[in-house]
Amino acid sequence: MGKIGVWLVGARGSVATTAIAGAAALRAGLAETTGCVTELPDFAGADLPGLGELVFGGHDVVDTPLVKRAERLVAAGVLPPALSGAVAAELDAAEARLRPAPSDGGRAAIDQVIADLAEFGKGLDHVVVLNVASTEPPCPPHTAHASLAALEGHEDVLPASSLYAYAAFRAGCGFVDFTPSTGARLPALDELARTAGVPYAGRDGKTGETLLRSVLAPMFAQRGLDVLAWSGTNLLGGGDGATLADPGPAASKNASKQQVLQQNLGHPVDGEVHIDHVPALGDWKTAWDHVLFAGFLGTRMTLQLTWQGCDSALAAPLVLDLARLTGKACRDGVAGPVADFGFFFKDPVGAGPHDLASQYAALRAWAHR
Amino acid sequence: MGKIGVWLVGARGSVATTAIAGAAALRAGLAETTGCVTELPDFAGADLPGLGELVFGGHDVVDTPLVKRAERLVAAGVLPPALSGAVAAELDAAEARLRPAPSDGGRAAIDQVIADLAEFGKGLDHVVVLNVASTEPPCPPHTAHASLAALEGHEDVLPASSLYAYAAFRAGCGFVDFTPSTGARLPALDELARTAGVPYAGRDGKTGETLLRSVLAPMFAQRGLDVLAWSGTNLLGGGDGATLADPGPAASKNASKQQVLQQNLGHPVDGEVHIDHVPALGDWKTAWDHVLFAGFLGTRMTLQLTWQGCDSALAAPLVLDLARLTGKACRDGVAGPVADFGFFFKDPVGAGPHDLASQYAALRAWAHR
Amino acid sequence: MGKIGVWLVGARGSVATTAIAGAAALRAGLAETTGCVTELPDFAGADLPGLGELVFGGHDVVDTPLVKRAERLVAAGVLPPALSGAVAAELDAAEARLRPAPSDGGRAAIDQVIADLAEFGKGLDHVVVLNVASTEPPCPPHTAHASLAALEGHEDVLPASSLYAYAAFRAGCGFVDFTPSTGARLPALDELARTAGVPYAGRDGKTGETLLRSVLAPMFAQRGLDVLAWSGTNLLGGGDGATLADPGPAASKNASKQQVLQQNLGHPVDGEVHIDHVPALGDWKTAWDHVLFAGFLGTRMTLQLTWQGCDSALAAPLVLDLARLTGKACRDGVAGPVADFGFFFKDPVGAGPHDLASQYAALRAWAHR
Amino acid sequence: MGKIGVWLVGARGSVATTAIAGAAALRAGLAETTGCVTELPDFAGADLPGLGELVFGGHDVVDTPLVKRAERLVAAGVLPPALSGAVAAELDAAEARLRPAPSDGGRAAIDQVIADLAEFGKGLDHVVVLNVASTEPPCPPHTAHASLAALEGHEDVLPASSLYAYAAFRAGCGFVDFTPSTGARLPALDELARTAGVPYAGRDGKTGETLLRSVLAPMFAQRGLDVLAWSGTNLLGGGDGATLADPGPAASKNASKQQVLQQNLGHPVDGEVHIDHVPALGDWKTAWDHVLFAGFLGTRMTLQLTWQGCDSALAAPLVLDLARLTGKACRDGVAGPVADFGFFFKDPVGAGPHDLASQYAALRAWAHR
Repeated sequence: MGKIGVWLVGARGSVATTAIAGAAALRAGLAETTGCVTELPDFAGADLPGLGELVFGGHDVVDTPLVKRAERLVAAGVLPPALSGAVAAELDAAEARLRPAPSDGGRAAIDQVIADLAEFGKGLDHVVVLNVASTEPPCPPHTAHASLAALEGHEDVLPASSLYAYAAFRAGCGFVDFTPSTGARLPALDELARTAGVPYAGRDGKTGETLLRSVLAPMFAQRGLDVLAWSGTNLLGGGDGATLADPGPAASKNASKQQVLQQNLGHPVDGEVHIDHVPALGDWKTAWDHVLFAGFLGTRMTLQLTWQGCDSALAAPLVLDLARLTGKACRDGVAGPVADFGFFFKDPVGAGPHDLASQYAALRAWAHR
Repeated sequence: MGKIGVWLVGARGSVATTAIAGAAALRAGLAETTGCVTELPDFAGADLPGLGELVFGGHDVVDTPLVKRAERLVAAGVLPPALSGAVAAELDAAEARLRPAPSDGGRAAIDQVIADLAEFGKGLDHVVVLNVASTEPPCPPHTAHASLAALEGHEDVLPASSLYAYAAFRAGCGFVDFTPSTGARLPALDELARTAGVPYAGRDGKTGETLLRSVLAPMFAQRGLDVLAWSGTNLLGGGDGATLADPGPAASKNASKQQVLQQNLGHPVDGEVHIDHVPALGDWKTAWDHVLFAGFLGTRMTLQLTWQGCDSALAAPLVLDLARLTGKACRDGVAGPVADFGFFFKDPVGAGPHDLASQYAALRAWAHR
Repeated sequence: MGKIGVWLVGARGSVATTAIAGAAALRAGLAETTGCVTELPDFAGADLPGLGELVFGGHDVVDTPLVKRAERLVAAGVLPPALSGAVAAELDAAEARLRPAPSDGGRAAIDQVIADLAEFGKGLDHVVVLNVASTEPPCPPHTAHASLAALEGHEDVLPASSLYAYAAFRAGCGFVDFTPSTGARLPALDELARTAGVPYAGRDGKTGETLLRSVLAPMFAQRGLDVLAWSGTNLLGGGDGATLADPGPAASKNASKQQVLQQNLGHPVDGEVHIDHVPALGDWKTAWDHVLFAGFLGTRMTLQLTWQGCDSALAAPLVLDLARLTGKACRDGVAGPVADFGFFFKDPVGAGPHDLASQYAALRAWAHR
Repeated sequence: MGKIGVWLVGARGSVATTAIAGAAALRAGLAETTGCVTELPDFAGADLPGLGELVFGGHDVVDTPLVKRAERLVAAGVLPPALSGAVAAELDAAEARLRPAPSDGGRAAIDQVIADLAEFGKGLDHVVVLNVASTEPPCPPHTAHASLAALEGHEDVLPASSLYAYAAFRAGCGFVDFTPSTGARLPALDELARTAGVPYAGRDGKTGETLLRSVLAPMFAQRGLDVLAWSGTNLLGGGDGATLADPGPAASKNASKQQVLQQNLGHPVDGEVHIDHVPALGDWKTAWDHVLFAGFLGTRMTLQLTWQGCDSALAAPLVLDLARLTGKACRDGVAGPVADFGFFFKDPVGAGPHDLASQYAALRAWAHR
């Protein structure tokens, strides 16, 4: 079979750079597949595109070379010191396939993206567009979002993430939103994906606090324990922290975080979630959760969690997993939302289960269809 | 249908007292069913014995009246202040059905327990014996454990928990071990249960650290994250803390705690588990876990947990659940180990799954057979 | 010597009720002096008014009887079950000395408070007014705050806490603000205290996160470690939590919390402080702090803290300490702010030290003058 | 003034390598003085030997070159990537002054160390011997330890750390024990130091859990709070972790850890301290402390701490501080134990204060004598 193109929106960011460098390291046998779900024994024989079949390209608004970005990630302790030299050639090859993000919005931007995707896709079997750019503020509703017909001629009401989804669908590509931005989550774009016969998935990769909530909330539910309040504080360095310190984007993210609790516990849960930007944390993040619950006869008890993780190292292997899985969806002719990828997301498309165990079972079953 | 007898070994302990008082409170509509798994909507229609069908009796080596024990649990914040008066009549009724634990071991003890169970069982449909006594040290192996034939005439090689299991089976009762003691876990006793046509389950109720491990270890496994070390410290007040400060019993408990990690992660995991007796904690316990794991490209990250719970409030509703479920198993004529009750235990009998989600699904399916 | 009157603003709140009930229990020998600083050996021989010399009265806007409030605190685990009956007579005696808080502001309120204090003070040596009412929003600046002369005729620009300070000073009473409200912290009121020859102290008792910060920040400073960010989340139940969930009062509190770091570290420190209202916590509070710091050659390290305390049990003994110490200040004829009481406060009056060790030394020296 | 020689016992270990490389970086202006106590403004004008006046040498049982050791510390994230190249020349210079540790014990070892120190000391003003080798097991008591006279001819009863102290004193050098080993803590060696007119200090640098305890225990004491139990778990990677996993050395360390609590709280405190070796932590350590305390009227509350630090980065600047301070003590002709250096140690020599604030004041006063 041929190659799968992986077009990264935000291609020079920490997540994208780590994914490109990491894929190169894995292909060269310089690293183990830790963190890659599709490399687990459960996925053996699932006929997914191999890591060696992935070809990387993408858009970004900045122009720092990938090699430079990788050096910074080494200095920050995200990439191992030995790695950056070993994969420099692969980074340069990807560098040659990066294009500047469109500076305008609306129809002109769409056309440019379609053209870039068409050029990139030459000689490739399928292309998957993955959004790993900074989180956008929530998108105000507009009547043009309601259907493909209503949208025609009003493409300038789409936020950047949705412009990319639109262009991807028009160009016959799959689309995955790893951020909490709007992306393909508008009726008009859902219609377009179905019409164009291409798959999409998302949104908002779960790599920390919400991942934990998706296994712990079911535990409380299955034990009949009554969660009285679930509070959380997230300390984020780096770009994502800065974006989310802005109340707009934070609102998008918080909504999906609390939703996971409600879905798993069956009722709304008291408690706030804070996202603080702590620049000195760099690529690292810390999440503290405090769960107050009642047990038998109302006795109050607590659970506290502290998760200290490197965002890029948590997200990058999932980006590779999603590229491979969505590549298979493209090959199989799947059209529209893929609910079975809910394992990866805080706010999954479609009507799948909300607990991680069921999501894993669904993903595994999908891969082996 | 008739009544189910619930014979508690350690009937004056905190767990047993909380279970008896709580069942009375629930029957009287004075409390909600928080913490009771078999009261969840998932178990509606499963035709389990009702809380109102349970009749409590038991053995203990001490003779403090149940009403006195309940008052102490109120002072300790385990039982609500309003409760002890309201359920005094029910506690007195159970009091009348308690018997002194046999002071000797061997055949004499077995005969006394059989006689007490026979007396208790008059007019009841079935009797379930539940061990909630203090944890024993590990039992040294003996050739008489190997089969029922080998055991005959050598019953004095059985530790106390196994004497109870033996007597229960001979008396036609189900048996559940909520502690890490030996209980029914000897080939001779397994043979006896099958021969006698009675069910048994256990062992070692999971109500804190191991409960969390049974949902978090699968999460690491399903995300392909590499757990490098999982360390734990448990601070326990009360009687169980004192017992487990003794290296013998602690060894039994630690073995089942680390086993859960290995079963879920597929390989042995570095890290120690400490159990400290902190008398000032009273009925409360605190577990701190530290998980060091590697993600993509070997990046090191950590998860920390602190669980602060009241042991009796966590265990008592599960004792009621197990009484009802094992009561049903008796009614249904189930013989031998019930692997489908693994949801409740650190070290379950039989060959069931090790992750909590699968254990819950198995339990639910069993209840609705 | 004669008696010291202790007039509590917010006399039916949790802190005041615990202080009144606790003082009665200590006098009756029913409890130990845990948490009382002035009962430490370091304060022996300091000639402070004894606990037996304190007489309680106060204002409140609600009228729930103290005995009722004490019962609720028993149910919440704040007061020991045995206590409330034993001190009922003392609570009733205090009840008879409580007066409704003035419903209006301005001059009429001041006159009523002065009259109530005069009535209360009959037969007493001195009276100390202690504000333990709910936290107010920050007070907007006004030119009438600048001097006593400017204030005359404009008393309606004073927030409630300052009306009490004004009335206290006019009535010849000492004044202590245990809350972050404005209280006596206006130039006009400082002038009045000095003119009237009465002492005042405050503000904002430190009983958790800030207490810890006042010993840990000096540790980082003395070791030359570079604090990069100090973040905090406070979960509060009860009335104070509700008040502080309102951004106005929270702003007052946060300002004093971050100030302690800056004063001890010598520079502003990055990091936010959140105060969440979690009603299910009741009288309890939880503070989580995360400190990111650099050591030798810039290596990043962290300290995390979780403080779980009962607000009333932490504050009430300090209220008794402050009543006794301010009583002594009244007896000694101290006029104006008492900087040496900074040990008790987040935002102390005067120019004392900011680290707890020096504050303790200053307090001890003051007591033994 | 002339140079101060710094002779490191364990000169190729992580702490020593970080100290040597760090001193070079500071002299070259490549790093800031973070973590160096003697560089704080409080120590300006104290006339301490400058960092530029320190000359490094030492013994070690292994022979890995310092440059190699530094590279490993870069890979482990302890030293910044840019550093190792920049200080290679300084590391090579120190390399030339390292000598193999004596392979035998007793008199032969002493003579060798004296000879090595004499050779090293040529052209230097004074030499300070600092023990940063692995922790020894506790030393069994022996009558020869009682006096210098008793020791003569029985030097083979001295553990390695004490052989070094003996040789240092005979060679006219100051001695500092940064480990919990016996070092100079024997009557015979104390006598020798006084006779020889040289200073010594120690023992067991406090860089984490005990540092925190020395500020938090005084806080509980000064607030009159009753500490019921103080429990701790330490997870250590690297060599020290391996040594301390052995119950012998752990016993030495635990004794000094619990002693700090008793000294500051005025009574023995319940609670255990665990030290676990977690190899995957490398140079990092994590300490979790759980403090259960009673407040007013006996209300139970808790404090939890997690300290995550890099042992070498915490210890190395203190080694430089102690070299400079002990160098000054040598210049000033101080003989015998220096109690005023207690700020640095878990188990300080002499009769100084036990709380960090007083220890800091004592150190500062000593430096400015």
